[in-house]
Amino acid sequence: MTFHSMWAELLPVGRDSASGGYRRYAWTAADADCRAWFEEQAVSRGLAYEVDRNGNQWAWLGDPAAGDAVVTGSHLDSVPDGGAFDGPLGVVSSFAALDELRARQVTFTKPLALVNFGDEEGARFGLACVGSRLTAGRLTVEQAHRLTDGDGITLPQAMEAAGHDPDAIGPDPERLARIGAFVELHVEQGRALDLSGDRVGIASAIWPHGRWRFDFRGEANHAGTTRLVDRRDPMLSYAETVLAARREAALAGAVATFGKISVEPNGVNAVPSLVRGWLDSRAEDQATLDTVVGGIEKAAREYAAAHGIDLDVVRESFTPVVEFDHALRDELARVLGRDTDLKVPVLGTGAGHDAGILSGRIPTAMLFVRNPTGVSHSPAEFAAEDDCVAGVHALADVLEGLACT
Amino acid sequence: MTFHSMWAELLPVGRDSASGGYRRYAWTAADADCRAWFEEQAVSRGLAYEVDRNGNQWAWLGDPAAGDAVVTGSHLDSVPDGGAFDGPLGVVSSFAALDELRARQVTFTKPLALVNFGDEEGARFGLACVGSRLTAGRLTVEQAHRLTDGDGITLPQAMEAAGHDPDAIGPDPERLARIGAFVELHVEQGRALDLSGDRVGIASAIWPHGRWRFDFRGEANHAGTTRLVDRRDPMLSYAETVLAARREAALAGAVATFGKISVEPNGVNAVPSLVRGWLDSRAEDQATLDTVVGGIEKAAREYAAAHGIDLDVVRESFTPVVEFDHALRDELARVLGRDTDLKVPVLGTGAGHDAGILSGRIPTAMLFVRNPTGVSHSPAEFAAEDDCVAGVHALADVLEGLACT
Repeated sequence: MTFHSMWAELLPVGRDSASGGYRRYAWTAADADCRAWFEEQAVSRGLAYEVDRNGNQWAWLGDPAAGDAVVTGSHLDSVPDGGAFDGPLGVVSSFAALDELRARQVTFTKPLALVNFGDEEGARFGLACVGSRLTAGRLTVEQAHRLTDGDGITLPQAMEAAGHDPDAIGPDPERLARIGAFVELHVEQGRALDLSGDRVGIASAIWPHGRWRFDFRGEANHAGTTRLVDRRDPMLSYAETVLAARREAALAGAVATFGKISVEPNGVNAVPSLVRGWLDSRAEDQATLDTVVGGIEKAAREYAAAHGIDLDVVRESFTPVVEFDHALRDELARVLGRDTDLKVPVLGTGAGHDAGILSGRIPTAMLFVRNPTGVSHSPAEFAAEDDCVAGVHALADVLEGLACT
Repeated sequence: MTFHSMWAELLPVGRDSASGGYRRYAWTAADADCRAWFEEQAVSRGLAYEVDRNGNQWAWLGDPAAGDAVVTGSHLDSVPDGGAFDGPLGVVSSFAALDELRARQVTFTKPLALVNFGDEEGARFGLACVGSRLTAGRLTVEQAHRLTDGDGITLPQAMEAAGHDPDAIGPDPERLARIGAFVELHVEQGRALDLSGDRVGIASAIWPHGRWRFDFRGEANHAGTTRLVDRRDPMLSYAETVLAARREAALAGAVATFGKISVEPNGVNAVPSLVRGWLDSRAEDQATLDTVVGGIEKAAREYAAAHGIDLDVVRESFTPVVEFDHALRDELARVLGRDTDLKVPVLGTGAGHDAGILSGRIPTAMLFVRNPTGVSHSPAEFAAEDDCVAGVHALADVLEGLACT
């Protein structure tokens, strides 16, 4: 089965016809369809298929117990109304790269596994990379059991409804100990490759990033009868803070975004009592990120004090910088550099990935495929088929270099 | 039954124990409890109780068919987490004023009716004053049938579930023709009486007001990987517009509020594709309101253009200035002026009321009771019991003047 036909097969699954975006949330019917597709691809290639204790899917060529396995893959779930490429490109490319290696009639000297990590985007339960976090012991079973979706369904309930035993979840050090290297191919989520004119790049690091919740509390009031001077309107401080975030990030060459908001009572004719905004910020290094977020918080406190607003700022999550394994990265650059037509720039990224979660436990690397729009997490996310095929070749080269020497 | 004991009886109905606010939405269980209370008060006083075709409750003393009736009342429903006074103060005061008139042993020369208008706040179906609008023919049956709540339940479905025949609704000119005057007592929703040191005031007019929906459309994108310069983030234009609204309203002595917002996809790590904000604005006269809203829209269009954002502005509702009947207003001032202890300032208001809806059809007036916080549509809404009792006396005086001469 070619890359093209695999891609065409997955394309309709979980696609919303109105938005054109994908709604492949963990442990839903759309997710089950994606997982059935993965199993079918594995079985049809004669690979040993298994689901691990945390719901991640694996397809093995060779004996897993032999150790020093080379693993590649990504995820199949999506953000709300996400694009087609974020996740699936890495999984489809893994199967396509294996097909290419078999066509080359290479001899594997190490076990090879393809993987689909569960619940990478965190769209349903609010925490990203649940499958890899559990496996790496970076999310406790207790924490996982407390995860709840927007309808009040807990992660264990959702797993059980989808036929996965929630009592089985937990860290999986034996599995990780058998892996010598993990390589994740992913569509680029920015325009660096497009601007440099390259089809494929290698990841250097994942920027440190975090989420902060800003709770602006004022006083609910009638929007028609309360004089401006008598108001304690938290929407004003929120608006000032949104603009401060843009300024601080621009000054520091970082990014800062207020993309999620919750307002109480959220009535047209009511001055809000509470405006809750979530800040997502990322920067190349820790010091820069501290400066940006510190600057935003300082500005927010000044505005809030000026308007009689109470402000709480809570850091909800934080991930320090992830430097990918230098030896593995250099090996990728060496292998890909042999093909003189293919330049291999090394670039940082602001996005989190399963590869980032695993990098503290096992040697990990990432390949990026050019995205001319730079857009991701949206139906406009795109990679040309030529570039996807170049990605498959590069991944095949990398796997041959790692598993067939 | 005293004002105090009636008030105490209603106080727990539909109160949310967490917020301390009221959730008495039209045609819900809490609303049914309020309506049962009204019926009980009517019946226990020997009044003729009826529900009109639009679900408004009436309690008659004397023969409705005699004509030139004097009507007083308000509503019992609430905004989300509203206060105890907005609406119920007028209904409870109506019963208490009738009790006081009976204690004075007055002779009624005209029919008197107490009324509870249904669905005044519009909290559930998004349109205020549905009961009085239908009765006055200011909302068509077709429009009413299209009203839908947040759960997709239509107004006819909600009425039917609550035991009211939705096929009966429509204009009720015969009923209005029998009414000579309507007086609504209401808690003040601002601090004018508190600032002037008065317990009770008379309404002059309701300011013209409207609701405008601002749709800022940009491009959804990954908050971690999209460079600031590559973004079309509608949250920035929204934030600038919130601040512009405050500036324009302050310059003109008007009010302008962005209290409701809807964001897509509303994800922490997503640049929004759509920020939809609702503007509520009101001013003393039409020209001032036009200036304020025009200024806000102009600023919003400039910001949107600068950030590559598409902006649609839709006027969702508009109510012109309502001047209350001058003869009736002067009669109220004359009657209340006889009591030299009670000053009666005449003041405008930014809030809509059933009295405003009916004022185009029948002579209508309003009394306001002092609210020391100025707060309304919030649990902090308040009126001291002494002031409430002064309001009951004033209403009794007015009704005696109108119905017993």
